[in-house]
Parts: sequence; structure tokens; C-alpha cells
Amino acid sequence: MINVRTDLAVEAREIYKNIHKREADGVIFKEDEKDDIKITTVEVTTPEGAEKIGKSIGKYITVDIPEYTHYDGELMDDVSKVVADYLADLIEVKEDKTALVIGLGNRNITPDALGPKVVEQMMITRHLKKVMPDTIDDSVRSVCALSPGVLGITGIETVEIVKAVVDKIKPSLVICIDALAARNLERINKTIQIGSTGISPGAGVGNNREGINEQSLGVPVIAIGVPTVVYASTIVNDSIDNIIDGLMEQTKNNKAFFSMLKDIDKNEKSALIKSMISEKGKDMIVTPKEIDVIIESVSKIISMSINKALQPNLEMEDINKFMN
Amino acid sequence: MINVRTDLAVEAREIYKNIHKREADGVIFKEDEKDDIKITTVEVTTPEGAEKIGKSIGKYITVDIPEYTHYDGELMDDVSKVVADYLADLIEVKEDKTALVIGLGNRNITPDALGPKVVEQMMITRHLKKVMPDTIDDSVRSVCALSPGVLGITGIETVEIVKAVVDKIKPSLVICIDALAARNLERINKTIQIGSTGISPGAGVGNNREGINEQSLGVPVIAIGVPTVVYASTIVNDSIDNIIDGLMEQTKNNKAFFSMLKDIDKNEKSALIKSMISEKGKDMIVTPKEIDVIIESVSKIISMSINKALQPNLEMEDINKFMN
Amino acid sequence: MINVRTDLAVEAREIYKNIHKREADGVIFKEDEKDDIKITTVEVTTPEGAEKIGKSIGKYITVDIPEYTHYDGELMDDVSKVVADYLADLIEVKEDKTALVIGLGNRNITPDALGPKVVEQMMITRHLKKVMPDTIDDSVRSVCALSPGVLGITGIETVEIVKAVVDKIKPSLVICIDALAARNLERINKTIQIGSTGISPGAGVGNNREGINEQSLGVPVIAIGVPTVVYASTIVNDSIDNIIDGLMEQTKNNKAFFSMLKDIDKNEKSALIKSMISEKGKDMIVTPKEIDVIIESVSKIISMSINKALQPNLEMEDINKFMN
Amino acid sequence: MINVRTDLAVEAREIYKNIHKREADGVIFKEDEKDDIKITTVEVTTPEGAEKIGKSIGKYITVDIPEYTHYDGELMDDVSKVVADYLADLIEVKEDKTALVIGLGNRNITPDALGPKVVEQMMITRHLKKVMPDTIDDSVRSVCALSPGVLGITGIETVEIVKAVVDKIKPSLVICIDALAARNLERINKTIQIGSTGISPGAGVGNNREGINEQSLGVPVIAIGVPTVVYASTIVNDSIDNIIDGLMEQTKNNKAFFSMLKDIDKNEKSALIKSMISEKGKDMIVTPKEIDVIIESVSKIISMSINKALQPNLEMEDINKFMN
Repeated sequence: MINVRTDLAVEAREIYKNIHKREADGVIFKEDEKDDIKITTVEVTTPEGAEKIGKSIGKYITVDIPEYTHYDGELMDDVSKVVADYLADLIEVKEDKTALVIGLGNRNITPDALGPKVVEQMMITRHLKKVMPDTIDDSVRSVCALSPGVLGITGIETVEIVKAVVDKIKPSLVICIDALAARNLERINKTIQIGSTGISPGAGVGNNREGINEQSLGVPVIAIGVPTVVYASTIVNDSIDNIIDGLMEQTKNNKAFFSMLKDIDKNEKSALIKSMISEKGKDMIVTPKEIDVIIESVSKIISMSINKALQPNLEMEDINKFMN
Repeated sequence: MINVRTDLAVEAREIYKNIHKREADGVIFKEDEKDDIKITTVEVTTPEGAEKIGKSIGKYITVDIPEYTHYDGELMDDVSKVVADYLADLIEVKEDKTALVIGLGNRNITPDALGPKVVEQMMITRHLKKVMPDTIDDSVRSVCALSPGVLGITGIETVEIVKAVVDKIKPSLVICIDALAARNLERINKTIQIGSTGISPGAGVGNNREGINEQSLGVPVIAIGVPTVVYASTIVNDSIDNIIDGLMEQTKNNKAFFSMLKDIDKNEKSALIKSMISEKGKDMIVTPKEIDVIIESVSKIISMSINKALQPNLEMEDINKFMN
Repeated sequence: MINVRTDLAVEAREIYKNIHKREADGVIFKEDEKDDIKITTVEVTTPEGAEKIGKSIGKYITVDIPEYTHYDGELMDDVSKVVADYLADLIEVKEDKTALVIGLGNRNITPDALGPKVVEQMMITRHLKKVMPDTIDDSVRSVCALSPGVLGITGIETVEIVKAVVDKIKPSLVICIDALAARNLERINKTIQIGSTGISPGAGVGNNREGINEQSLGVPVIAIGVPTVVYASTIVNDSIDNIIDGLMEQTKNNKAFFSMLKDIDKNEKSALIKSMISEKGKDMIVTPKEIDVIIESVSKIISMSINKALQPNLEMEDINKFMN
Repeated sequence: MINVRTDLAVEAREIYKNIHKREADGVIFKEDEKDDIKITTVEVTTPEGAEKIGKSIGKYITVDIPEYTHYDGELMDDVSKVVADYLADLIEVKEDKTALVIGLGNRNITPDALGPKVVEQMMITRHLKKVMPDTIDDSVRSVCALSPGVLGITGIETVEIVKAVVDKIKPSLVICIDALAARNLERINKTIQIGSTGISPGAGVGNNREGINEQSLGVPVIAIGVPTVVYASTIVNDSIDNIIDGLMEQTKNNKAFFSMLKDIDKNEKSALIKSMISEKGKDMIVTPKEIDVIIESVSKIISMSINKALQPNLEMEDINKFMN
């Protein structure tokens, strides 16, 4: 699985299945549909499953965003309702407990700015409940948020900052939002992944060496992510795989060639990829030209979902009125 | 001093002096010049002085930025060198100790974005010294930074976040950067204030109820600020004062009128101001139209100053090479 | 009317009425309400009326935006429908004729960026109707748009650029959007003015020496504007007027003093204002801190209105689907 | 050359040379070095040469930007001086003639925003020379600028707008700045191309169907461009070529297989690429993550170059003083 970077459980499971022609043990796969929106669930139930697809034990729900225009409020509402529903299922924390929303990523790099953008649109109530409890109904949950920045800008591991703040304000739940890397161009900005087990080392476009999860923080952590880029090296790797597959198909009756192709091993492939993608190219990403606009509308969908899921006693209308 | 909001010690001292026609006890005032750049020092030495001008005990250095164009690299260098020198004097922490730079303010509100903008241009080294100490010279100080956001966006008091991170990473020095409010339009974006005692309750455009200072954090706190706005209510108040002064000048031979004008008391003035500045107007600010461009260049000057002051063993050239 | 700058006909009329205690001849004033939204019409019918309130002959409709949150889609829809209706009344051009939308102002100065922001959200169809007429229904109007920039950035008078493009592509209607200056803080971002006669010399925050109107362009020009700033000098002027009025009220039984106050003539007032507002202060503006967010949502309202008014055969839903 | 999109003459020449193992007739290639900066000149002298490498007759100078940090003013100065020199050679218009600088591209799409960004940093003098000639020295050239936007936003072909404005203000020279697409990842943001013959149909990231050149505008047109993206399809194509080349190398002793590989014709390759790059993927671009920061500094280099080349009588210092 070298050179293929994906943060999506649904893709990791697919890669495994394509290679082994069967589901990994300890991985349960389900597909569903709701209001024309496709939902896929990958559940990793055992350490073996975790190792095989490279994802921690837990539930990964993937909601597909249908083709849409960035002005289509109705469709955005539909998607955010579906996401909110699945999110609400994962939130096992009573409404009188505080939630902390963490926007991961670098806000100055557009495809990495998803988390900070979502945080800016959260319904923030913790300070009101603390300072002027009379102005706010008891049924409203206390919510706070933070965009800690990235290691290169702060010099502090993100998890250190998050842990420090969690220790101080003691929320009962943490929700992390992060921009992800996909393997498949088709998924860019078209898929929302909700994970029950936080963020594991190495995931995300950012540099999060230590995990941001229940283990490190001591409270449940839900992770929400959207793939906004594919690494250039992934594209090159896949191109090479495809041409080899194509040639194998053409030469399947010629045993010698066929086995030669089959024997192109990982090292040779790695060398080829390296010759194409220079040191500099390693940080190159593939992304749609209009990424700025897309991040804007996807962050809106996600923030609406979280606001709704965290405030089960409020109507969307009340949430909107609150925001200003 | 009602209705006149200023975060500048130099203005607070001036207001006191204009009213009382003498320096406040416990306040020492000095003016200096360096390379055509004017520097003013207000030192508050006693609790009486602190109360009289409404500033904590400590040293407040004000560096005036001469008229300049936003492309004039040379002048920006000159100013940043002067600021760096004064800053270096205040930094009594050895070079092997960590400094934490805090960018206060709301990055989405242009005149309040100074702090976060400065943080983005800091020479950040702490992670390198920790993770790959070989890549970085011992003479380089460990520096990290954070832009904690504002209460309305995070739901967490800024000082709570800063305190949490300080407790976790234990820096030996904190430097805070904040956008300030001035009384006088002339000072907007033209003055850099360096304070030895951090930020006291109520200062800044943001909402920092508790102070960010040695008392709350346990380490020395240096504050750097630039006035980026004047409150609309300050302008109105000053207009009213001016017209009254003008009339008093004109009527000084007519005792009855003169004393009537003198008797316009604070309540009347307050009522007048309120009638002009509605509830909504209270949050109105006066700022130059081209504030976006100005914040850009002022933040550059300040970040260069801090980088230089924190890294006495490096040349500006080395610092520039490091940044990328 | 020296020192009081307003681009709003409704304010110019008000100032005249306050001074002369009656409506100006040649000016008709009407108030209306639609779905809780207040609409005011000032119609200038004669050259005398034009001179008296300083606005060209024509119709000026002012739609008040009720208090709202920037997430409240419904209210934004309501306001944009009202604006669209009034706009549609002014558009006397058949649907098979081309409309050109001009976004005036400097996009890099937030309070001046309204016009360019609106242009970015227009439903642009001219190129489709020209190049692939089959993809687009005949009932859809041909619409194109331009943000010409401002004199200081281009070195070309805005009207020169607009005229050049109008001469080339020959639209049948021009709609200009511009950020305006108000006199009253209350009106900032709370009022949409629709004018039937384009933009006259001196109006707008930008520098439009020659008018952008039927005279200069040869086609009807509708102007839409929102006040986003009040000039600092206007606030100072009004403060001085208010305190003088207050004192006159207090001293009305003291003839000598009263007449002294009454005699404070324009020159004295001008000198006072100048002493307060320095050369630099003249370009200072008063604006809400959160102007960035507000421009975002107001530009959305206006673009929805124009899209709807220009495409009477389309539902809002169709327009949204088109945009991407 | 299908599927390989490059706007760089230096790459087009290289592709030809790699395939045909010799220089194309009618193409002259030269390499030079100045202050450690590499300069390459491709001169197309005949229609045959033009057809062979797909570039119009004219001179294409490519200046390589050495590795640098975005804060390194000195290196930026060096590069901009070299570019200014070559630019000055191409400008055959006397200093008393007006130059019009055109910033092509969509300012809201970061990798396409180079042109508009450069325009914002031009020394604009035309309005001063017209309106207040006394304030400006005779030796200063009249310069104006425009960012016309892109077809999808304006509904008007870019060349129509430029032609309209050129016809109106009659400059003696047009300089166009545009973001380009390269073939090689290494060149992204590392190369400045100066072309003597404007922009030909199809060039650039934008949609410029008709050329912006002396033919269409009637005045000389110089084009300056920087590659900011590689198309995803180019990467895939090159990957496939590389693997085939690698396999051919490995199988050169096996004639049957070798010739099979050699026979993979364009159609098969096209089908393979299409299977990898879906409809959606066609608009995908490869770009560095930190593209926002890079565009900022590259636009600064280019604007400094143009300012210097257009104002041979001014020192850089004078130009900087002018800008504000």
C-alpha cells in the first residue's frame, strides 16, 4: 500500500478488497441510502481488521454529497440533515455536558482550511452559559471551539494544545474537523467521513504525529473530515498500476510477458515514481481549481450538521437566529 | 475620563496632564529620538500613578512610525530595528529559554487581525529543537506561537487558553500582540506601544476580561500593540469637548455664560453622546479605508522586531533564510 | 450642507426638510411597507428639486433591511424579493436585450468591495447565448458583468472603461452597484437605495468624476447602492451641530448668548472641524467592526435581487441551479 | 503532443527535441547566466518553427527563479532586475508613450490570480499625468492597468474588453500577465516567461479563445507568465509514458514484447488516461500546498520588474516612494 495515501476508511477497505478479492476479517461494510444521498459504513471490529485496512477500531460513516451548485441551499440542508443524524447517533453525551469543537489544519492554505472555517460557523454558547446564564435556555448545550493551528506555524504539536485546553475546560466530548487526502480524484470534496474514534497518527493533511483521540484526551473524540486533495504521488502510482494492469490484460496469453509484468515489484515501482515526482513534487497536491469556493460551501454543510447534532432541542431556525 | 477609550499609556498620560496641567505623581515621562524615529517612554512607578492614568505599574515605550509607503523596505527595517532594541532591553530571559508569542484578536475583522498576522510571520523553532535538534544551532532560541481567537468565536476566555498552553509547555517568556484603540485619529497605525507588564483587563479591541500578565500566567509578559481604531464615541466626545472649549474661549469675559458652559456636567455630555451614538453606534469604529494594506505592513514591522529581539545571535539575513 | 456627505437621497431630503421645515419643491416623498419591510421613495421631478437636495432628477427607492443574522436565509430572501420587485419596475428593457452589470469600487478595501462582490454572484449568460445558444433557453436574458476597478489602481476613469465596453458590446441596460456613504450611522448596511438615473459625479466612495448615466453611456442606467461608511468628518460635524442645538435650547431665554451661538457661522465650524480632523483624518471612515461579514451577506441579497429582476422567466430555484 | 499541455516555449522546444533528437528548424535555442540566475531564450523565426513547437513566431525568454524564501528581499530584487533588463530590451516604445498593463486570470482562484495581483502593485501614473501633470515629472511614463476578469464571470471575451479599452485610451504598448500551465512539476512557480508576441489562442489557465496580440489589438503586446499549475492529465500522461519507456528498456531484447509496447498508440493511451481522469478530473490541477504564499511573492517580483522596465528614468527607490 506504499505511495497510496488515503485518509478515507471507505477507500482503504476498497483497496484491500480489490487486492484480496474479499472483505478483510474484522471489517463490516454496509451501504445505505437516505433522500437520494448514499451512505456507506465501514466498521472495524477487531485489531486484525484495524491492521488490515490501516484504520483504528471504530465506525466510519461516509456520506456522499450529490452534485450541487454552491448556491443550492436546499440540497445543502438535505445533506447536513443526514450528517447531523449520523452524528447525533455517535454523540452519547447528555445535553447538559460541554462539547469542544476543534478545527484542525492551516487556515492560510486553502485546501487545508476546512477545520478553521467550520469553527467560525459554530454556535458558540459556553461563555454565555457561564457569564450570563439568564440569556440562554437550559436546553441549549454548552459549546466551545478552537482552531489550534499547525505545527509549522505554532511550534507546538496540535495535540499538546488540544490536551492543554481539554484539561483546563474539561469538555465531555471533542469533535475534530480536518481536511483529508483521498486516493481517488472522484471523492475530492464529494464525501464527508464521520469517525467514532478521533484522529490517528499520520492522518490528515496536517502534521498530527500523536493521535487526537480518547486515549490521548481522556474524552470521546468524533472526527469529521472531507477529502480536499489527492497527493500527486498517488496519481502517479495509480497511473502506473493502471498501465500495468492494461498490459497484463493484453498479454494474458503470453505467459513470459505476463509474469514479467507481474514481477515488477514494489521497489521498481517506487523508483519509477521517485523519478517522476521529485523531492519538491512530494508536497504537490491535486485539487480542483475552484477549491476556494468549494471549501466555503462544504464548511457550511458541516457546521450546520454539527450545530444541529449538538443542539437536539433547537430548530435550525433557532440556531440561525442565534448566529450573528 | 468617561467615554474616552484609549489603550495607549502615552495618551492616558497626556489626558491627565491636559486636565491637571502637570505630570501625575508616580509617572515618569521621557522623549527620545533615534534615526529620526521618535520614542516616548511612560513609566508608571507607584500604585498612585497607576490609578491616575489608568495603567498598571510598568514601562510603556511608544515608537512612532514615520510616514511611509507600504513598499519602502528600508524604512520598515529602520523602525523594526528600533523596536527590536527596546524589546531586547525588556527581555530578561536567557537565549536557551523558550518564548511563546500570542497573537490576540479576531483574524476575520481586519482592524483586529494584527496579532494573528504577526504570529504567521514569526520564526518558529520550538518543534525543530525538540524533534530534530541537529538541524538547528544551539544559539537559536526556542520560539513557539499561538493565536487563540476571541471569546465570541471560541466560547473560552482567551486567558484560559493561554494559561492552559503556558502550563503545558512552560515557556520562560510570553509576548502578546494586540490591536489597540487610540483616542486620537493621528495615532492610528502610526504608533507601536511596547509594555513591560502584559495586558490588563479591558485593554484591546477584543474581550479580555482577565489580564494576560505575570500575575495570571506566572511568567513575564511583554505586550506589543498598535492602535488600529478610534471608537466612534470617542470622536463624538472629543468633538463636544472641543466646541465647548471653543465657546469658553469666546465667552471668557462673560462670566455667566462661561460658568454655564463650565457646568455642563458629565451627565449632560453623556446624554448628548448617547443621543448621537445609538446602541448600534457603540460598536462603530473609525479606521482608515485602506486598513487591510496597513495591517499587512505594520504586522511585518512587528514580526521582524520580535524575531530579531528573540534571536540576538542571528542576523536578519539568517532569520529571513529560515522563514519559508 | 458643507462637510455632510451623503449619497442617500432619503437623507438629503431629510436634511433639507429639517432645515426648511417643509418638503423641497420638485421633490415627492412616499413611504410604504411590504412584508414588514419599510420602503421609502424620493422622487425628484424638477431641476429645482434636484438642486435643492443635490440629487439628479429621477426616482430613488430605499428599502430598509430589518435586523437580521447573516445566516437567516429566509429574511434575506424576503428583502431580495422586495428589491427585485422595485428593480423590475424600473427595468423597461425587453427580456431579449442584453444587460450589463457594473461592480464599482475597490475590491481590496472591504467597505468599498460591495460592487465587485455582487458581480461575482451574478447569473452570467451572454457568453453561453453567443457561443452555445442550444444549451440555454430563449427566455433567459443575456447578462454580462464587469468590475472595472478604481482610478487609483487603473489610472483610467471608471466611466472611460465602462463607456468603452458599452460601445463595444452594446447592452440595452446598465446596472451599477456601488458602496455609498451615509450621514447617519444607523443606516450603515441597513438600507438599499435603487436609483433610476445612474451615478452622478461625486457619488460613491470611489472616485467617479464623470457620471455613469444615460447621458454618458447612451443607455438607461440603474444604480443600486448600500451605505457602508459614514465619513469621520460627518460625525464630527453632527456632534458640533448637536451640542450647539443643545446649548441653544438651554439658553433660549438668554438672548445675547443665544444669538452668539446662532452666529457661529460655517467658517468657524469648518475651522473647528478641521482642527479635529486632520488632513489624514479626512479619509477616515466610521464603519462597524464586522464589516467583512456584512458585505458578504448584503452582496448576496443584492445579487439575488438583480438575478431575479433580470430573469423574470426563471424561478429562483432555476437561477440557483444555474450558478456553479 | 496530445494530453500534454504546456504554455512554456522552453518545454515545447524540449518535447520536440526529445522526440526528434534534434532542434526544430526555425527555432533557435540559447542559454545564459546572469548573477547565478539561469536565462533561456527560445526564438521562433519561421512559420515552420512555429508549427513544430506550437508557439507563435517571436522571442520567449525564460528566467529561472532560484530557491528562495518569501522574505528574502535581496534575491527577489536580483531576479526582478534580470527580468526588468530583458523586458526593457523588448519595450521599443519611447518613454512619453502610454503603457497598459493587463492582469489576466480569475482573482478568486489562487493559482490563476497572478495577473490581478501584479496589477495591484503597478506604479499607476496615467491619471496623474492627465489630471495633475504638475505633480509628476515629465520623465515618468504614463502607465495604466486593468484586470478584466474571466469569461465565466463577465460573459465577455477577455479580448473584447481589452480591445475596447485599447481603442478608447490608445496606449502604445500592452503588457499582459497570466498564470500558465507547465508540463513539469519542477517548473511550477520557478520560471518567469517573457514573450514578445502576446498571448495566442488557448494559452493560459483562463479562457482566451482569441489572441491578445498585436494582430488583435493593433499595438505591440508583451506577455509575462509564470507556470502555477500542471494539469492532472499531464501528470497521468507522463506517468504512462515513463512506465512504457521503462518497460521498453527492460524488454529491448524481446522483440515481440518491445514492439507491442511501441505499438501502444495514442488512442490506447488516450483511453487509459480517460479511464483514470474522469470528466471531473480534467479540471483538476497539481499545485503546491502553499500556493497562496507563493503567488504573493512571485507577483511582487514581476510587478517590480515591470515598474522598473517601464520607468527607465526612475530608481527603484523613487518607484517605492511613489507607491502608497
